[in-house]
Amino acid sequence: MGAVQARVESALARSLPPAEQRPARLHQAMRYAALGGGKRVRPLLVFASGEAAGAAPARLDVAACAVELIHSYSLVHDDLPCMDDDVLRRGKPTVHVEYDEATALLVGDALQSLAFQLLAEHEIADEPSIQLEMVRTLSLAAGSRGMAGGQAIDLESVGKPLALPELELMHIHKTGALIRASVGLGARCGAALTPERFERLDHYAKCVGLAFQVVDDVLDAAASTATLGKTAGKDAAQNKPTYVSALGVAGARELAESLRKEAHAALAGFGEGAARLRSLADFIVLREF
Amino acid sequence: MGAVQARVESALARSLPPAEQRPARLHQAMRYAALGGGKRVRPLLVFASGEAAGAAPARLDVAACAVELIHSYSLVHDDLPCMDDDVLRRGKPTVHVEYDEATALLVGDALQSLAFQLLAEHEIADEPSIQLEMVRTLSLAAGSRGMAGGQAIDLESVGKPLALPELELMHIHKTGALIRASVGLGARCGAALTPERFERLDHYAKCVGLAFQVVDDVLDAAASTATLGKTAGKDAAQNKPTYVSALGVAGARELAESLRKEAHAALAGFGEGAARLRSLADFIVLREF
Repeated sequence: MGAVQARVESALARSLPPAEQRPARLHQAMRYAALGGGKRVRPLLVFASGEAAGAAPARLDVAACAVELIHSYSLVHDDLPCMDDDVLRRGKPTVHVEYDEATALLVGDALQSLAFQLLAEHEIADEPSIQLEMVRTLSLAAGSRGMAGGQAIDLESVGKPLALPELELMHIHKTGALIRASVGLGARCGAALTPERFERLDHYAKCVGLAFQVVDDVLDAAASTATLGKTAGKDAAQNKPTYVSALGVAGARELAESLRKEAHAALAGFGEGAARLRSLADFIVLREF
Repeated sequence: MGAVQARVESALARSLPPAEQRPARLHQAMRYAALGGGKRVRPLLVFASGEAAGAAPARLDVAACAVELIHSYSLVHDDLPCMDDDVLRRGKPTVHVEYDEATALLVGDALQSLAFQLLAEHEIADEPSIQLEMVRTLSLAAGSRGMAGGQAIDLESVGKPLALPELELMHIHKTGALIRASVGLGARCGAALTPERFERLDHYAKCVGLAFQVVDDVLDAAASTATLGKTAGKDAAQNKPTYVSALGVAGARELAESLRKEAHAALAGFGEGAARLRSLADFIVLREF
Protein backbone atom coordinates (compact mmCIF):
# COMPACT_ATOMS: atom_id res chain seq x y z
CA MET A 1 0.00 0.00 0.00
CA GLY A 2 2.80 2.40 0.89
CA ALA A 3 4.46 1.72 -2.45
CA VAL A 4 1.29 2.58 -4.40
CA GLN A 5 0.74 5.71 -2.31
CA ALA A 6 4.30 6.89 -3.02
CA ARG A 7 3.88 6.07 -6.70
CA VAL A 8 0.64 8.07 -6.91
CA GLU A 9 2.16 11.01 -5.06
CA SER A 10 4.92 11.16 -7.62
CA ALA A 11 2.51 10.74 -10.55
CA LEU A 12 0.38 13.60 -9.17
CA ALA A 13 3.47 15.78 -8.79
CA ARG A 14 4.29 15.18 -12.48
CA SER A 15 0.71 15.69 -13.66
CA LEU A 16 0.04 18.99 -11.90
CA PRO A 17 1.28 22.19 -13.57
CA PRO A 18 4.70 23.29 -12.23
CA ALA A 19 4.48 25.71 -9.29
CA GLU A 20 6.46 28.36 -11.13
CA GLN A 21 4.32 28.30 -14.30
CA ARG A 22 1.97 31.25 -14.66
CA PRO A 23 -0.51 31.81 -13.08
CA ALA A 24 1.92 30.76 -10.34
CA ARG A 25 -0.28 31.39 -7.34
CA LEU A 26 -3.05 29.23 -8.78
CA HIS A 27 -0.64 26.46 -9.69
CA GLN A 28 0.98 26.54 -6.24
CA ALA A 29 -2.44 26.33 -4.64
CA MET A 30 -3.43 23.40 -6.90
CA ARG A 31 -0.33 21.53 -5.79
CA TYR A 32 -0.99 22.46 -2.16
CA ALA A 33 -4.49 21.00 -2.47
CA ALA A 34 -3.59 17.76 -4.22
CA LEU A 35 -0.14 16.81 -2.95
CA GLY A 36 1.21 15.51 0.32
CA GLY A 37 -1.74 14.07 2.08
CA GLY A 38 -4.67 11.78 2.36
CA LYS A 39 -4.95 8.03 2.47
CA ARG A 40 -5.30 7.89 -1.32
CA VAL A 41 -8.07 5.32 -0.96
CA ARG A 42 -9.38 5.94 -4.47
CA PRO A 43 -5.98 5.53 -6.17
CA LEU A 44 -5.43 2.38 -4.10
CA LEU A 45 -8.71 1.03 -5.45
CA VAL A 46 -7.71 1.95 -9.02
CA PHE A 47 -4.46 0.00 -8.63
CA ALA A 48 -6.10 -2.97 -6.90
CA SER A 49 -8.81 -3.24 -9.51
CA GLY A 50 -6.27 -2.74 -12.30
CA GLU A 51 -4.24 -5.60 -10.92
CA ALA A 52 -7.30 -7.85 -11.09
CA ALA A 53 -7.59 -6.92 -14.79
CA GLY A 54 -3.88 -7.24 -15.55
CA ALA A 55 -3.43 -3.54 -16.33
CA ALA A 56 -0.04 -1.87 -16.82
CA PRO A 57 0.97 0.30 -13.84
CA ALA A 58 1.77 3.30 -16.08
CA ARG A 59 -1.86 3.34 -17.19
CA LEU A 60 -3.07 3.04 -13.63
CA ASP A 61 -0.97 6.05 -12.60
CA VAL A 62 -3.04 8.19 -14.96
CA ALA A 63 -6.42 6.81 -13.95
CA ALA A 64 -5.49 7.07 -10.26
CA CYS A 65 -4.43 10.70 -10.66
CA ALA A 66 -7.64 11.58 -12.49
CA VAL A 67 -9.81 10.13 -9.73
CA GLU A 68 -7.72 11.68 -6.97
CA LEU A 69 -7.86 15.12 -8.63
CA ILE A 70 -11.66 14.95 -8.66
CA HIS A 71 -11.59 13.95 -5.00
CA SER A 72 -9.15 16.74 -4.13
CA TYR A 73 -11.23 19.35 -5.92
CA SER A 74 -14.32 18.24 -4.01
CA LEU A 75 -12.51 18.63 -0.69
CA VAL A 76 -11.37 22.16 -1.57
CA HIS A 77 -14.90 23.22 -2.50
CA ASP A 78 -16.51 21.39 0.46
CA ASP A 79 -14.27 23.24 2.88
CA LEU A 80 -15.29 26.70 1.57
CA PRO A 81 -17.17 29.01 3.95
CA CYS A 82 -20.42 28.66 1.98
CA MET A 83 -20.25 24.85 2.40
CA ASP A 84 -18.69 23.19 5.48
CA ASP A 85 -16.57 26.23 6.39
CA ASP A 86 -13.66 24.15 7.60
CA VAL A 87 -10.14 25.31 8.41
CA LEU A 88 -8.26 22.01 8.67
CA ARG A 89 -7.75 19.27 6.08
CA ARG A 90 -5.16 16.50 5.98
CA GLY A 91 -3.50 18.18 8.97
CA LYS A 92 -2.97 21.47 7.12
CA PRO A 93 -4.95 24.72 6.80
CA THR A 94 -7.59 24.39 4.09
CA VAL A 95 -6.90 26.04 0.72
CA HIS A 96 -9.09 29.11 1.29
CA VAL A 97 -7.38 29.68 4.66
CA GLU A 98 -3.85 29.24 3.29
CA TYR A 99 -4.64 31.25 0.12
CA ASP A 100 -8.05 32.92 -0.24
CA GLU A 101 -11.59 32.00 -1.20
CA ALA A 102 -11.40 33.06 -4.83
CA THR A 103 -8.23 31.05 -5.33
CA ALA A 104 -9.78 28.02 -3.64
CA LEU A 105 -12.75 28.26 -5.97
CA LEU A 106 -10.49 28.34 -9.03
CA VAL A 107 -8.27 25.57 -7.66
CA GLY A 108 -11.25 23.23 -7.47
CA ASP A 109 -12.44 24.22 -10.93
CA ALA A 110 -9.03 23.71 -12.48
CA LEU A 111 -8.38 20.39 -10.73
CA GLN A 112 -11.60 19.07 -12.21
CA SER A 113 -10.56 20.12 -15.73
CA LEU A 114 -7.14 18.57 -15.23
CA ALA A 115 -8.68 15.21 -14.30
CA PHE A 116 -10.42 14.98 -17.67
CA GLN A 117 -7.35 16.24 -19.48
CA LEU A 118 -5.31 13.37 -18.05
CA LEU A 119 -7.87 10.77 -19.10
CA ALA A 120 -7.84 12.17 -22.63
CA GLU A 121 -4.17 12.79 -23.29
CA HIS A 122 -2.48 9.53 -22.34
CA GLU A 123 -3.03 6.11 -23.86
CA ILE A 124 -4.53 4.24 -20.93
CA ALA A 125 -6.81 1.63 -22.49
CA ASP A 126 -6.60 -0.88 -25.31
CA GLU A 127 -9.00 1.17 -27.46
CA PRO A 128 -9.82 4.90 -27.64
CA SER A 129 -13.50 3.96 -27.37
CA ILE A 130 -12.82 2.37 -23.96
CA GLN A 131 -11.05 5.54 -22.91
CA LEU A 132 -14.09 7.60 -23.91
CA GLU A 133 -16.15 5.27 -21.74
CA MET A 134 -13.76 6.10 -18.89
CA VAL A 135 -14.30 9.84 -19.41
CA ARG A 136 -18.02 9.20 -19.27
CA THR A 137 -17.71 7.11 -16.11
CA LEU A 138 -15.71 9.77 -14.29
CA SER A 139 -17.93 12.64 -15.42
CA LEU A 140 -21.07 10.84 -14.30
CA ALA A 141 -19.48 9.98 -10.96
CA ALA A 142 -18.44 13.60 -10.41
CA GLY A 143 -21.58 15.37 -11.60
CA SER A 144 -25.07 16.13 -10.37
CA ARG A 145 -26.08 12.46 -10.51
CA GLY A 146 -22.95 11.52 -8.58
CA MET A 147 -20.70 13.34 -6.15
CA ALA A 148 -21.96 16.90 -6.66
CA GLY A 149 -25.51 15.59 -6.37
CA GLY A 150 -24.61 13.93 -3.07
CA GLN A 151 -23.33 17.25 -1.78
CA ALA A 152 -26.63 18.84 -2.74
CA ILE A 153 -28.60 16.14 -0.90
CA ASP A 154 -26.27 16.69 2.06
CA LEU A 155 -27.02 20.43 2.06
CA GLU A 156 -30.75 19.77 2.01
CA SER A 157 -30.54 17.33 4.88
CA VAL A 158 -28.65 19.31 7.53
CA GLY A 159 -30.71 19.40 10.70
CA LYS A 160 -33.24 16.86 9.40
CA PRO A 161 -33.46 13.35 10.81
CA LEU A 162 -32.90 11.15 7.74
CA ALA A 163 -34.25 7.63 7.54
CA LEU A 164 -31.68 5.00 6.65
CA PRO A 165 -32.67 4.72 2.95
CA GLU A 166 -32.30 8.51 2.57
CA LEU A 167 -28.94 8.47 4.30
CA GLU A 168 -27.84 5.69 1.99
CA LEU A 169 -29.02 7.59 -1.08
CA MET A 170 -26.93 10.58 -0.01
CA HIS A 171 -23.78 8.54 0.49
CA ILE A 172 -24.20 6.43 -2.64
CA HIS A 173 -23.91 9.76 -4.43
CA LYS A 174 -21.50 11.65 -2.23
CA THR A 175 -18.71 9.11 -1.78
CA GLY A 176 -19.99 5.91 -3.39
CA ALA A 177 -20.06 7.17 -6.97
CA LEU A 178 -16.38 8.13 -7.08
CA ILE A 179 -15.32 4.92 -5.35
CA ARG A 180 -17.24 2.87 -7.91
CA ALA A 181 -15.65 4.93 -10.67
CA SER A 182 -12.20 4.19 -9.20
CA VAL A 183 -12.77 0.47 -9.45
CA GLY A 184 -14.32 0.79 -12.90
CA LEU A 185 -11.49 2.91 -14.26
CA GLY A 186 -8.81 0.60 -12.92
CA ALA A 187 -10.48 -2.38 -14.54
CA ARG A 188 -10.84 -0.63 -17.91
CA CYS A 189 -7.10 0.04 -18.03
CA GLY A 190 -6.56 -3.71 -18.40
CA ALA A 191 -7.76 -6.54 -20.60
CA ALA A 192 -11.51 -6.53 -21.17
CA LEU A 193 -13.34 -8.39 -18.39
CA THR A 194 -16.49 -10.40 -19.03
CA PRO A 195 -19.63 -8.38 -18.21
CA GLU A 196 -20.27 -10.78 -15.33
CA ARG A 197 -16.82 -10.15 -13.82
CA PHE A 198 -17.13 -6.41 -14.33
CA GLU A 199 -20.49 -6.53 -12.57
CA ARG A 200 -18.92 -8.38 -9.63
CA LEU A 201 -16.17 -5.77 -9.31
CA ASP A 202 -18.83 -3.10 -9.38
CA HIS A 203 -20.76 -4.83 -6.63
CA TYR A 204 -17.56 -5.04 -4.58
CA ALA A 205 -17.11 -1.29 -5.14
CA LYS A 206 -20.65 -0.50 -3.99
CA CYS A 207 -20.12 -2.40 -0.73
CA VAL A 208 -16.73 -0.85 -0.11
CA GLY A 209 -17.99 2.64 -0.91
CA LEU A 210 -20.81 2.42 1.58
CA ALA A 211 -18.59 0.76 4.21
CA PHE A 212 -16.10 3.59 3.78
CA GLN A 213 -18.75 6.15 4.70
CA VAL A 214 -20.14 4.13 7.60
CA VAL A 215 -16.64 3.84 9.08
CA ASP A 216 -16.02 7.56 8.44
CA ASP A 217 -19.09 8.35 10.52
CA VAL A 218 -17.91 6.05 13.33
CA LEU A 219 -14.46 7.64 13.32
CA ASP A 220 -15.86 11.17 13.22
CA ALA A 221 -17.83 10.36 16.36
CA ALA A 222 -15.03 8.51 18.14
CA ALA A 223 -11.58 9.63 17.02
CA SER A 224 -9.69 12.85 17.75
CA THR A 225 -8.90 15.71 15.38
CA ALA A 226 -5.18 14.91 15.68
CA THR A 227 -5.70 11.31 14.53
CA LEU A 228 -7.99 12.25 11.65
CA GLY A 229 -6.05 15.28 10.37
CA LYS A 230 -9.43 16.96 9.94
CA THR A 231 -11.91 18.44 12.38
CA ALA A 232 -13.49 15.59 14.40
CA GLY A 233 -16.98 15.56 15.90
CA LYS A 234 -18.16 17.87 13.14
CA ASP A 235 -21.19 15.81 12.16
CA ALA A 236 -22.73 15.93 15.62
CA ALA A 237 -21.84 19.61 16.04
CA GLN A 238 -23.57 20.43 12.74
CA ASN A 239 -26.46 18.11 13.56
CA LYS A 240 -25.83 16.10 10.42
CA PRO A 241 -27.54 12.76 9.96
CA THR A 242 -24.94 9.95 10.06
CA TYR A 243 -24.85 6.19 10.38
CA VAL A 244 -23.95 6.70 14.02
CA SER A 245 -26.96 8.90 14.67
CA ALA A 246 -29.16 6.39 12.80
CA LEU A 247 -27.75 3.11 14.16
CA GLY A 248 -25.51 3.93 17.10
CA VAL A 249 -21.78 3.13 17.10
CA ALA A 250 -22.26 -0.61 17.57
CA GLY A 251 -24.94 -0.84 14.87
CA ALA A 252 -22.79 1.13 12.44
CA ARG A 253 -19.79 -1.14 13.14
CA GLU A 254 -21.99 -4.18 12.47
CA LEU A 255 -23.19 -2.75 9.17
CA ALA A 256 -19.60 -2.05 8.10
CA GLU A 257 -18.60 -5.59 8.96
CA SER A 258 -21.44 -7.11 6.95
CA LEU A 259 -20.52 -4.90 3.96
CA ARG A 260 -16.92 -6.09 4.27
CA LYS A 261 -18.09 -9.70 4.04
CA GLU A 262 -20.31 -8.92 1.07
CA ALA A 263 -17.36 -7.25 -0.70
CA HIS A 264 -15.25 -10.38 -0.17
CA ALA A 265 -18.06 -12.59 -1.46
CA ALA A 266 -18.31 -10.53 -4.66
CA LEU A 267 -14.68 -11.39 -5.39
CA ALA A 268 -15.15 -15.15 -5.14
CA GLY A 269 -13.58 -16.77 -8.19
CA PHE A 270 -11.12 -13.92 -8.84
CA GLY A 271 -8.27 -15.83 -7.21
CA GLU A 272 -4.92 -14.23 -6.38
CA GLY A 273 -5.46 -11.32 -8.79
CA ALA A 274 -7.95 -9.84 -6.36
CA ALA A 275 -5.71 -10.11 -3.28
CA ARG A 276 -5.22 -6.35 -3.13
CA LEU A 277 -8.93 -5.65 -3.48
CA ARG A 278 -9.56 -7.98 -0.55
CA SER A 279 -6.99 -6.31 1.70
CA LEU A 280 -8.38 -2.92 0.78
CA ALA A 281 -11.87 -3.93 1.88
CA ASP A 282 -10.33 -5.01 5.18
CA PHE A 283 -8.30 -1.83 5.49
CA ILE A 284 -11.29 0.40 4.78
CA VAL A 285 -13.44 -1.24 7.44
CA LEU A 286 -10.77 -1.89 10.08
CA ARG A 287 -8.82 1.41 9.82
CA GLU A 288 -8.66 3.73 12.78
CA PHE A 289 -8.09 7.05 11.00
CA MET B 1 -28.11 32.99 -36.23
CA GLY B 2 -31.49 32.92 -34.54
CA ALA B 3 -32.09 29.40 -35.86
CA VAL B 4 -28.82 28.12 -34.38
CA GLN B 5 -29.51 29.86 -31.09
CA ALA B 6 -32.96 28.23 -30.86
CA ARG B 7 -31.47 24.87 -31.80
CA VAL B 8 -28.80 25.14 -29.09
CA GLU B 9 -31.36 26.21 -26.49
CA SER B 10 -33.37 23.11 -27.21
CA ALA B 11 -30.27 20.85 -27.23
CA LEU B 12 -29.26 22.29 -23.85
CA ALA B 13 -32.74 21.69 -22.46
CA ARG B 14 -32.48 18.04 -23.51
CA SER B 15 -28.91 17.62 -22.21
CA LEU B 16 -29.46 19.05 -18.74
CA PRO B 17 -30.93 16.76 -16.07
CA PRO B 18 -34.75 17.15 -15.75
CA ALA B 19 -35.80 19.74 -13.16
CA GLU B 20 -37.81 17.16 -11.22
CA GLN B 21 -34.98 14.61 -10.98
CA ARG B 22 -33.33 14.40 -7.55
CA PRO B 23 -31.51 16.39 -6.29
CA ALA B 24 -34.23 18.64 -7.72
CA ARG B 25 -33.04 21.96 -6.35
CA LEU B 26 -29.59 21.46 -7.86
CA HIS B 27 -31.04 20.39 -11.20
CA GLN B 28 -33.42 23.34 -11.27
CA ALA B 29 -30.54 25.67 -10.54
CA MET B 30 -28.40 24.10 -13.27
CA ARG B 31 -31.19 24.71 -15.76
CA TYR B 32 -31.67 28.25 -14.45
CA ALA B 33 -27.96 28.91 -15.02
CA ALA B 34 -27.65 27.43 -18.49
CA LEU B 35 -31.00 28.02 -20.20
CA GLY B 36 -32.79 31.06 -21.53
CA GLY B 37 -30.13 33.59 -22.10
CA GLY B 38 -26.93 34.80 -23.56
CA LYS B 39 -25.83 35.46 -27.08
CA ARG B 40 -24.55 31.89 -27.41
CA VAL B 41 -21.45 33.17 -29.18
CA ARG B 42 -19.48 29.99 -28.51
CA PRO B 43 -22.18 27.65 -29.87
CA LEU B 44 -22.51 29.92 -32.90
CA LEU B 45 -18.77 29.51 -33.48
CA VAL B 46 -19.05 25.73 -33.09
CA PHE B 47 -21.77 25.64 -35.77
CA ALA B 48 -19.98 28.05 -38.08
CA SER B 49 -16.73 26.14 -37.87
CA GLY B 50 -18.53 22.82 -38.21
CA GLU B 51 -20.17 24.09 -41.38
CA ALA B 52 -16.74 24.87 -42.80
CA ALA B 53 -15.75 21.24 -42.09
CA GLY B 54 -19.00 19.72 -43.40
CA ALA B 55 -20.06 18.41 -39.96
CA ALA B 56 -23.51 16.97 -39.22
CA PRO B 57 -25.67 19.36 -37.16
CA ALA B 58 -26.54 16.62 -34.61
CA ARG B 59 -22.84 16.36 -33.75
CA LEU B 60 -22.52 20.11 -33.51
CA ASP B 61 -25.44 20.23 -31.06
CA VAL B 62 -23.38 18.15 -28.63
CA ALA B 63 -20.13 20.06 -29.06
CA ALA B 64 -21.98 23.37 -28.79
CA CYS B 65 -23.69 22.29 -25.57
CA ALA B 66 -20.40 21.13 -24.05
CA VAL B 67 -18.72 24.46 -24.71
CA GLU B 68 -21.71 26.47 -23.54
CA LEU B 69 -21.96 24.45 -20.31
CA ILE B 70 -18.32 25.30 -19.53
CA HIS B 71 -19.06 28.95 -20.26
CA SER B 72 -22.21 28.89 -18.11
CA TYR B 73 -20.39 27.28 -15.19
CA SER B 74 -17.69 29.96 -15.37
CA LEU B 75 -20.30 32.73 -15.21
CA VAL B 76 -21.95 31.17 -12.14
CA HIS B 77 -18.63 30.93 -10.31
CA ASP B 78 -17.43 34.38 -11.47
CA ASP B 79 -20.56 35.98 -10.07
CA LEU B 80 -20.04 34.51 -6.57
CA PRO B 81 -19.36 36.93 -3.71
CA CYS B 82 -15.73 35.78 -3.38
CA MET B 83 -15.16 36.64 -7.06
CA ASP B 84 -17.01 39.48 -8.83
CA ASP B 85 -19.92 39.52 -6.37
CA ASP B 86 -22.49 40.29 -9.01
CA VAL B 87 -26.26 40.17 -8.70
CA LEU B 88 -27.37 40.40 -12.33
CA ARG B 89 -26.60 38.14 -15.28
CA ARG B 90 -28.41 37.82 -18.59
CA GLY B 91 -31.07 40.13 -17.18
CA LYS B 92 -31.87 37.80 -14.25
CA PRO B 93 -30.65 37.50 -10.66
CA THR B 94 -27.39 35.53 -10.52
CA VAL B 95 -27.59 31.91 -9.33
CA HIS B 96 -26.34 32.55 -5.78
CA VAL B 97 -28.91 35.36 -5.42
CA GLU B 98 -31.81 33.30 -6.80
CA TYR B 99 -30.74 30.15 -4.90
CA ASP B 100 -27.82 30.34 -2.47
CA GLU B 101 -24.02 30.34 -2.56
CA ALA B 102 -23.54 26.64 -1.83
CA THR B 103 -25.97 25.71 -4.59
CA ALA B 104 -24.25 28.08 -7.02
CA LEU B 105 -20.91 26.46 -6.22
CA LEU B 106 -22.32 22.98 -6.92
CA VAL B 107 -24.13 24.17 -10.05
CA GLY B 108 -20.85 25.31 -11.55
CA ASP B 109 -19.09 22.10 -10.55
CA ALA B 110 -21.82 19.91 -11.98
CA LEU B 111 -22.12 21.89 -15.23
CA GLN B 112 -18.42 21.34 -15.82
CA SER B 113 -18.77 17.57 -15.31
CA LEU B 114 -21.77 17.49 -17.62
CA ALA B 115 -19.79 19.15 -20.41
CA PHE B 116 -17.28 16.30 -20.44
CA GLN B 117 -20.01 13.72 -20.10
CA LEU B 118 -21.64 15.01 -23.29
CA LEU B 119 -18.38 14.90 -25.25
CA ALA B 120 -17.85 11.29 -24.16
CA GLU B 121 -21.29 9.77 -24.50
CA HIS B 122 -22.39 10.72 -27.99
CA GLU B 123 -20.73 9.82 -31.26
CA ILE B 124 -19.61 13.21 -32.50
CA ALA B 125 -16.50 12.54 -34.56
CA ASP B 126 -15.43 10.09 -37.25
CA GLU B 127 -13.11 8.28 -34.83
CA PRO B 128 -13.12 7.81 -31.02
CA SER B 129 -9.51 9.02 -31.01
CA ILE B 130 -10.64 12.36 -32.48
CA GLN B 131 -13.27 12.58 -29.78
CA LEU B 132 -10.63 12.03 -27.10
CA GLU B 133 -8.70 14.88 -28.68
CA MET B 134 -11.85 17.00 -28.29
CA VAL B 135 -12.05 16.13 -24.58
CA ARG B 136 -8.41 17.18 -24.26
CA THR B 137 -9.03 20.44 -26.14
CA LEU B 138 -11.95 21.41 -23.93
CA SER B 139 -10.23 20.45 -20.68
CA LEU B 140 -7.13 22.45 -21.57
CA ALA B 141 -9.26 25.44 -22.56
CA ALA B 142 -11.19 25.28 -19.28
CA GLY B 143 -8.34 24.61 -16.88
CA SER B 144 -5.51 26.48 -15.22
CA ARG B 145 -3.71 27.03 -18.50
CA GLY B 146 -6.93 28.30 -20.05
CA MET B 147 -10.06 29.94 -18.69
CA ALA B 148 -9.54 29.27 -14.96
CA GLY B 149 -5.96 30.51 -15.34
CA GLY B 150 -7.26 33.70 -16.95
CA GLN B 151 -9.52 34.24 -13.95
CA ALA B 152 -6.53 33.85 -11.66
CA ILE B 153 -4.52 36.41 -13.65
CA ASP B 154 -7.56 38.70 -13.48
CA LEU B 155 -7.68 38.39 -9.68
CA GLU B 156 -4.01 39.25 -9.40
CA SER B 157 -4.36 42.29 -11.62
CA VAL B 158 -7.25 44.17 -9.99
CA GLY B 159 -6.09 47.67 -9.17
CA LYS B 160 -2.82 47.28 -11.08
CA PRO B 161 -2.17 49.15 -14.32
CA LEU B 162 -1.46 46.32 -16.80
CA ALA B 163 0.66 46.89 -19.88
CA LEU B 164 -0.97 45.81 -23.13
CA PRO B 165 0.93 42.47 -23.39
CA GLU B 166 -0.18 41.53 -19.86
CA LEU B 167 -3.75 42.47 -20.61
CA GLU B 168 -3.60 40.35 -23.74
CA LEU B 169 -2.16 37.39 -21.81
CA MET B 170 -5.06 37.59 -19.38
CA HIS B 171 -7.70 37.64 -22.08
CA ILE B 172 -6.07 34.98 -24.23
CA HIS B 173 -6.65 32.75 -21.24
CA LYS B 174 -9.88 34.12 -19.84
CA THR B 175 -12.05 34.26 -22.95
CA GLY B 176 -9.73 33.39 -25.84
CA ALA B 177 -9.07 29.79 -24.86
CA LEU B 178 -12.73 28.74 -24.85
CA ILE B 179 -13.45 30.59 -28.08
CA ARG B 180 -10.53 28.80 -29.77
CA ALA B 181 -11.82 25.52 -28.37
CA SER B 182 -15.27 26.26 -29.82
CA VAL B 183 -13.84 26.63 -33.31
CA GLY B 184 -11.59 23.58 -32.85
CA LEU B 185 -14.41 21.38 -31.60
CA GLY B 186 -16.76 22.38 -34.39
CA ALA B 187 -14.11 21.56 -36.99
CA ARG B 188 -13.33 18.15 -35.44
CA CYS B 189 -16.98 17.13 -35.72
CA GLY B 190 -16.55 17.14 -39.49
CA ALA B 191 -14.25 15.61 -42.09
CA ALA B 192 -10.57 15.90 -41.21
CA LEU B 193 -9.12 19.24 -42.35
CA THR B 194 -5.55 19.57 -43.55
CA PRO B 195 -3.26 20.81 -40.77
CA GLU B 196 -2.81 24.05 -42.72
CA ARG B 197 -6.58 24.65 -42.87
CA PHE B 198 -6.99 23.75 -39.21
CA GLU B 199 -4.22 26.21 -38.37
CA ARG B 200 -6.02 28.93 -40.34
CA LEU B 201 -9.27 28.31 -38.49
CA ASP B 202 -7.33 28.49 -35.24
CA HIS B 203 -5.81 31.81 -36.26
CA TYR B 204 -9.29 33.09 -37.09
CA ALA B 205 -10.40 31.97 -33.62
CA LYS B 206 -7.53 33.77 -31.90
CA CYS B 207 -8.40 37.04 -33.65
CA VAL B 208 -12.10 36.70 -32.94
CA GLY B 209 -11.50 35.75 -29.31
CA LEU B 210 -9.40 38.82 -28.66
CA ALA B 211 -11.77 41.07 -30.61
CA PHE B 212 -14.64 39.75 -28.53
CA GLN B 213 -12.95 40.90 -25.33
CA VAL B 214 -11.90 44.27 -26.73
CA VAL B 215 -15.50 44.97 -27.78
CA ASP B 216 -16.75 43.74 -24.38
CA ASP B 217 -14.54 46.33 -22.72
CA VAL B 218 -15.84 49.06 -25.01
CA LEU B 219 -19.44 48.08 -24.33
CA ASP B 220 -18.89 47.85 -20.57
CA ALA B 221 -17.63 51.42 -20.65
CA ALA B 222 -20.28 52.76 -23.01
CA ALA B 223 -23.54 50.77 -22.84
CA SER B 224 -26.21 50.64 -20.17
CA THR B 225 -27.03 47.83 -17.76
CA ALA B 226 -30.42 47.40 -19.43
CA THR B 227 -28.86 46.86 -22.87
CA LEU B 228 -26.19 44.46 -21.61
CA GLY B 229 -28.38 42.40 -19.24
CA LYS B 230 -25.48 42.53 -16.80
CA THR B 231 -24.06 45.26 -14.61
CA ALA B 232 -22.41 47.92 -16.83
CA GLY B 233 -19.48 50.14 -15.88
CA LYS B 234 -18.19 47.41 -13.56
CA ASP B 235 -14.65 47.41 -14.88
CA ALA B 236 -14.06 51.06 -14.13
CA ALA B 237 -15.83 50.80 -10.76
CA GLN B 238 -13.57 47.91 -9.78
CA ASN B 239 -10.52 49.65 -11.24
CA LYS B 240 -9.89 46.72 -13.58
CA PRO B 241 -7.44 47.09 -16.41
CA THR B 242 -9.28 46.97 -19.75
CA TYR B 243 -8.61 47.74 -23.39
CA VAL B 244 -10.46 50.99 -22.86
CA SER B 245 -8.26 52.01 -19.94
CA ALA B 246 -5.18 51.01 -21.95
CA LEU B 247 -6.11 52.44 -25.38
CA GLY B 248 -9.15 54.66 -24.93
CA VAL B 249 -12.48 53.95 -26.63
CA ALA B 250 -11.30 54.99 -30.09
CA GLY B 251 -8.07 53.00 -29.83
CA ALA B 252 -9.93 49.91 -28.65
CA ARG B 253 -12.41 50.20 -31.52
CA GLU B 254 -9.51 50.45 -33.97
CA LEU B 255 -7.88 47.35 -32.52
CA ALA B 256 -11.15 45.41 -32.79
CA GLU B 257 -11.51 46.48 -36.41
CA SER B 258 -8.01 45.35 -37.33
CA LEU B 259 -8.62 42.00 -35.64
CA ARG B 260 -11.84 41.63 -37.65
CA LYS B 261 -9.86 42.14 -40.86
CA GLU B 262 -7.22 39.65 -39.77
CA ALA B 263 -9.93 37.09 -39.02
CA HIS B 264 -11.36 37.54 -42.51
CA ALA B 265 -7.90 37.19 -44.05
CA ALA B 266 -7.34 33.89 -42.22
CA LEU B 267 -10.39 32.49 -44.01
CA ALA B 268 -9.17 33.32 -47.50
CA GLY B 269 -9.53 30.22 -49.66
CA PHE B 270 -12.33 28.68 -47.59
CA GLY B 271 -15.00 29.87 -50.01
CA GLU B 272 -18.72 29.72 -49.23
CA GLY B 273 -18.27 27.14 -46.44
CA ALA B 274 -16.86 29.85 -44.23
CA ALA B 275 -19.66 32.36 -44.82
CA ARG B 276 -20.98 31.92 -41.32
CA LEU B 277 -17.55 32.32 -39.75
CA ARG B 278 -17.18 35.59 -41.65
CA SER B 279 -20.52 36.98 -40.50
CA LEU B 280 -19.74 35.97 -36.94
CA ALA B 281 -16.49 37.93 -36.98
CA ASP B 282 -18.51 40.91 -38.17
CA PHE B 283 -21.21 40.36 -35.57
CA ILE B 284 -18.71 40.06 -32.72
CA VAL B 285 -16.99 43.32 -33.59
CA LEU B 286 -20.00 45.37 -34.67
CA ARG B 287 -22.52 44.25 -32.00
CA GLU B 288 -23.93 46.79 -29.58
CA PHE B 289 -24.76 44.50 -26.66
